[in-house]
Amino acid sequence: MQRRTVVALDAMGGDRAPEAIVNGAIRAALELNIDIVLVGDEFAIRNATIEALPEQVTIRHTTQVIAMHDEPATAVRTKRDSSIVRAAEMVRDGEADAFVGAGNTGATMAAALLRFGRIRGVNRPAIAIPIPIPGSPRKQLLVDGGATVDPEPAWMVQWAKLGQIYARTRLGIAEPTVGLLSNGEEPGKGDALRKAAFALLETEIVNFVGNVEGRDLVRASADVIVTDGFTGNIALKTLEGSMMAMAGLIFGVLDEPEFAPQATAIKLRLLEGAADLLPDNTGGALLLGVNGVCIISHGSSSPDAIVNACRVAVAGVEADVVGSLAVALEASSSARSDAVVAPAVV
Amino acid sequence: MQRRTVVALDAMGGDRAPEAIVNGAIRAALELNIDIVLVGDEFAIRNATIEALPEQVTIRHTTQVIAMHDEPATAVRTKRDSSIVRAAEMVRDGEADAFVGAGNTGATMAAALLRFGRIRGVNRPAIAIPIPIPGSPRKQLLVDGGATVDPEPAWMVQWAKLGQIYARTRLGIAEPTVGLLSNGEEPGKGDALRKAAFALLETEIVNFVGNVEGRDLVRASADVIVTDGFTGNIALKTLEGSMMAMAGLIFGVLDEPEFAPQATAIKLRLLEGAADLLPDNTGGALLLGVNGVCIISHGSSSPDAIVNACRVAVAGVEADVVGSLAVALEASSSARSDAVVAPAVV
Repeated sequence: MQRRTVVALDAMGGDRAPEAIVNGAIRAALELNIDIVLVGDEFAIRNATIEALPEQVTIRHTTQVIAMHDEPATAVRTKRDSSIVRAAEMVRDGEADAFVGAGNTGATMAAALLRFGRIRGVNRPAIAIPIPIPGSPRKQLLVDGGATVDPEPAWMVQWAKLGQIYARTRLGIAEPTVGLLSNGEEPGKGDALRKAAFALLETEIVNFVGNVEGRDLVRASADVIVTDGFTGNIALKTLEGSMMAMAGLIFGVLDEPEFAPQATAIKLRLLEGAADLLPDNTGGALLLGVNGVCIISHGSSSPDAIVNACRVAVAGVEADVVGSLAVALEASSSARSDAVVAPAVV
Repeated sequence: MQRRTVVALDAMGGDRAPEAIVNGAIRAALELNIDIVLVGDEFAIRNATIEALPEQVTIRHTTQVIAMHDEPATAVRTKRDSSIVRAAEMVRDGEADAFVGAGNTGATMAAALLRFGRIRGVNRPAIAIPIPIPGSPRKQLLVDGGATVDPEPAWMVQWAKLGQIYARTRLGIAEPTVGLLSNGEEPGKGDALRKAAFALLETEIVNFVGNVEGRDLVRASADVIVTDGFTGNIALKTLEGSMMAMAGLIFGVLDEPEFAPQATAIKLRLLEGAADLLPDNTGGALLLGVNGVCIISHGSSSPDAIVNACRVAVAGVEADVVGSLAVALEASSSARSDAVVAPAVV
């Protein structure tokens, strides 16, 4: 009998931890038929739910917690018995297949990077965020959604490649296109980083479609949209903020007494139509470039979000996404070295 | 009798030029009681409207046009008889009080910069975009909304000061606060540019409130939000794109047959509530730092947008916003030199 997938879940991370995490874990274990190790303070975990933990959910007790405001690298170095560090080590040591965390994003990434190591050919990791397109079943991957600020242009090319491979395995797109997020569509647009990255992407990436703009994030443009982690963070939070603001405006109007006859029905249809747009339903984002499956979940994760983050983790493990990324990068880089080396050999 | 304010309006710029511009100009001249010089091809302008031009609207014929895809600096240098260059020169030569353009943004800025020159103490210009806060009468100024990419940290401090002065005169805020757009609220967050700018802003700006995030663009956070022109462009277009996408989703639901009884009334209320969010109603953004009033209008400007852009121009002229900016910058920089020089003198 095949061993069930094991997810190491940081029980202490996120605004609603440990309650939302523990209750999400119980549901995820049963719904996805996986084993979950809740990593964190045993007392807090046991007190976080009124349900008895099912046999598939176990606890790995730790004595330290990395807080949301802790400086990531320092915290990972000094808090060695924290839930984040121990969960990452379980994957490194083969005790778990994937690490899921909704806590301090920087520390979660740093722990994965330092404990898993990097895939050969990758300089820095990037977060791959699937962005829903309103009114369409398609999603576009934003890479990097916030892992690495101030990248070298060459790192962005690596992210484009990782993103293409991930879009193929995760989103089922046979020939994913790549766009560069910039301040205009014309090839000459952008700051110095964009101009340098554009030149490299044009040479090295199959199906590079050129620059895309901020508004292209919410309409079908490119399957993989590459940017630096700073700009990616600004774009994602702006997108989330504006959608929430618009939703607030609409619900405010629907709450006016004269619209009472149809307000509830309209709200239900809106929630249905917007379901794919909610962060909870995306659940989590894969950290691309580290040598193991690490899923970054939203800080405000609900039990639903945790279930979905575990779902993304399991899909990543089952598709051996890390192995595919490593093989594909290796192939692409040796193809390139061959191309460069060949003339000299001849 | 006081001379009426004269606006030089690029009649050839924007997706809907010259029709939208000419018809907007006729309305603006009458509604705002100003003189407007339509700068562009006389034949095209006369054929753009079925109305006779009122006495307050005149034409300055030009023979060249800068297209949307033209490289800005080259276009301004080589197309000397273009509507953009001639409109900027009219302000320089005292024939007009303000220049309003909805065409190639880069060329409009370049023409203003090269023909007006800069305010003393300003290295590069920035666009000040008033961002509406849904459900609130307040607006926040985003500076730079897209004029200058790859700024030095010190230029961002200049933009913060210009933004504060403009928020005082334009938005009527007595003590405007300043925030730095970053990828987290904590002081250590940001890329290299943000970290350097944060340190300077902290020392030099009164009422600096620290970092703000993407989602803070649409909720009350800081009166002036400082960023580089690349990030500003991405944030603005993401904001616009997500709001339009949400609006599309809502109108789609309201168009379903079962909601017919109340759909029209709800749509009207939504349009009313969202009126302040539409780019047409903001009309135009002041180019901060150049030595004259230049208003950048949206590329898709309608006649309404042109009227509102002219309104912003007139307000800028009447409040002598350029003079106030120059005086305030001069004062702030001499206060700083005094502070530095004083000890040595003693």
